[in-house]
Amino acid sequence: MDSFIMGLVEVAARPGMISFATGLPDNSLFDLAGVRHAVDAVLEEDGGCSLQYDSPTGFIPLREWIADRCGSELGFDVDASNVIMTNGSQECFDQLGRLFLNPGDGMVVENPGYLGALQSFSSYSPDFIPVDVTPGGIDLEQLDAALSCNPKLFYSIPNHQNPSGNSYSLDTRRQVASMIRDSGCLMIEDDAYGELGFDGRVGPTMKSMSPEDVVLTGSFSKTISPGMRVGWMVVPDWMVPMASKSVEAASLQSCTFSQRVIHRFLCKNDYDAYLVGLRNSYAEKKRFFLDAMEDALPDTVSWNNPDGGMFVWLEIPEGYDSMKVFEGCLERGLVVMPGAPFHVHGGGNAIRLNFATPTREQIIQGMSILAEVCRRM
Amino acid sequence: MDSFIMGLVEVAARPGMISFATGLPDNSLFDLAGVRHAVDAVLEEDGGCSLQYDSPTGFIPLREWIADRCGSELGFDVDASNVIMTNGSQECFDQLGRLFLNPGDGMVVENPGYLGALQSFSSYSPDFIPVDVTPGGIDLEQLDAALSCNPKLFYSIPNHQNPSGNSYSLDTRRQVASMIRDSGCLMIEDDAYGELGFDGRVGPTMKSMSPEDVVLTGSFSKTISPGMRVGWMVVPDWMVPMASKSVEAASLQSCTFSQRVIHRFLCKNDYDAYLVGLRNSYAEKKRFFLDAMEDALPDTVSWNNPDGGMFVWLEIPEGYDSMKVFEGCLERGLVVMPGAPFHVHGGGNAIRLNFATPTREQIIQGMSILAEVCRRM
Repeated sequence: MDSFIMGLVEVAARPGMISFATGLPDNSLFDLAGVRHAVDAVLEEDGGCSLQYDSPTGFIPLREWIADRCGSELGFDVDASNVIMTNGSQECFDQLGRLFLNPGDGMVVENPGYLGALQSFSSYSPDFIPVDVTPGGIDLEQLDAALSCNPKLFYSIPNHQNPSGNSYSLDTRRQVASMIRDSGCLMIEDDAYGELGFDGRVGPTMKSMSPEDVVLTGSFSKTISPGMRVGWMVVPDWMVPMASKSVEAASLQSCTFSQRVIHRFLCKNDYDAYLVGLRNSYAEKKRFFLDAMEDALPDTVSWNNPDGGMFVWLEIPEGYDSMKVFEGCLERGLVVMPGAPFHVHGGGNAIRLNFATPTREQIIQGMSILAEVCRRM
Repeated sequence: MDSFIMGLVEVAARPGMISFATGLPDNSLFDLAGVRHAVDAVLEEDGGCSLQYDSPTGFIPLREWIADRCGSELGFDVDASNVIMTNGSQECFDQLGRLFLNPGDGMVVENPGYLGALQSFSSYSPDFIPVDVTPGGIDLEQLDAALSCNPKLFYSIPNHQNPSGNSYSLDTRRQVASMIRDSGCLMIEDDAYGELGFDGRVGPTMKSMSPEDVVLTGSFSKTISPGMRVGWMVVPDWMVPMASKSVEAASLQSCTFSQRVIHRFLCKNDYDAYLVGLRNSYAEKKRFFLDAMEDALPDTVSWNNPDGGMFVWLEIPEGYDSMKVFEGCLERGLVVMPGAPFHVHGGGNAIRLNFATPTREQIIQGMSILAEVCRRM
């Protein structure tokens, strides 16, 4: 499957190819001028420190900013010392796998679930226990059964999940918090898309509901820049020493320059107003994308209406094969992401579509290809 | 020992404290204006791509630049596909440990050896086999005995080693290359200081002498900026797929922005002329530092005369304790780095001194403290 995905990335980059397949945010929405001003300020004001080594756990003013935001937006109070900066939130998954997983340990994952995280945890050879994700969030009966197997970790994206676009309902959050508490299982709450709710955050964080049992991972990848690789994890007190040591052993520290530039960007701009602009752009793009789906696709397929993030989840009828849809689209110049790789045990008769990156013209063209392929089946 | 070092870093940062203890390059030599021009060019010319995700193995033009330099400066030809970018060379050590070490596997390390790498490899619980480093390089008899234990990895810094400042002689390089060839042991050649030879490179790379048995790790941390976290490893063909996959699982990719900025910096400047300037500054600082040692320190202690890098290795007489020197200096406002942590099994009656970062005034003041402590013993 790895080589399939690597091949897909290459194919999607070919000139003339339309892609609904990637996990990339929209290039054109990056605030290049804002980043330039932040860079100028950092080089001017911080001088050599901006390019020097820093603390393994990260640039303290940025960690303080994140801790403040946890209080003001994410519903829980935390000290900056509990915020550990990483090379994107992907490094959090690697670190948490390293700290908690031995081969054969149980680990609960969402089904479908985020492929990059599954690949990261796979390095530590856990025994994955997939639990279905529905439009209201994770299946609670399955989760209850999974937790009875004494898993070490539970990885989840409660907001605008990659790949399905679904979010946990408030009731689901409450029940998950109650189940996870004192279960002995550490929950990883990946909040990569939490700031991209079209009408603001869709629910309280799991971390606010069960602070000692949850590690929240965050990132500026979907809001400011994925290429700057600034992620973090908010860990309980008891984890701070082990996580700090582990991050240092793995890569000394993440990028000083990126952390300072992003911190200056946050200080110099009205971040909430900036986020509103970003959310509105994505919301508008989603409406356009869903309208195009409605106009073009046959009644035999169905899809959800995500309230944030970058993805819509297209389900095709039982008995049809999403790999065939993928192949049919590819022949005609459109790349889509079949659902199978997002499932630990394969299957999943669905397709992930990224509505955020294609242009409107590409959406219209791509949708007519997708419609033709669906109709031929 | 970890908490001791973390404490030391904090102590060294206190106002008024003089530090010969860090592993930092000299802040004041960073080319801030050059970096700013490179940033401007990247944001202007690359637009959104400069902040976007990139290939897990790194920015291709930078990998091509490094491959070219391997041919022109490091004595071996290699394709850009063999160059894998990492979050500083520290990530290389973690990746190589992950790929090759199981708990209890033999691993040859230099004694004394670079602490950061030892900490990184320790995560994989190898059985370290320390081999002494002398002014001419690694002890060949001990290395021969160590290799007969079928170790998986051999980690070395042949040029201007951290901590000792020593380099391998040409004869040592030849014999090591011959011993490592077909030994079944993979050699890791950490070339972090290779470009900092005061009269240019001090010898051929081990990679050029035994390309299939050596992974060379490099970094711009000691030449352009440590805080940008741009490192790499040059791996044999057979390692490319596994290393690429492993880097992606650990952190998706290292920083796009840093890689592009450094690439633009290299293209827009005469890097060799820049390096000559840097080497001259460090050489001059070293001469000043060694003159101050000569003037101040008693005859009972001795030290080497490194031909590159950032460190000088001070040996104190048998029967005296470098931890006592450390403590005596600390009381008087000087931080030095005792030798013990650089030895797998402790010991090492020596002190690592960083001559690169203190100012001339700090060198004079610090040396008189060090002299007083040495004399009192």
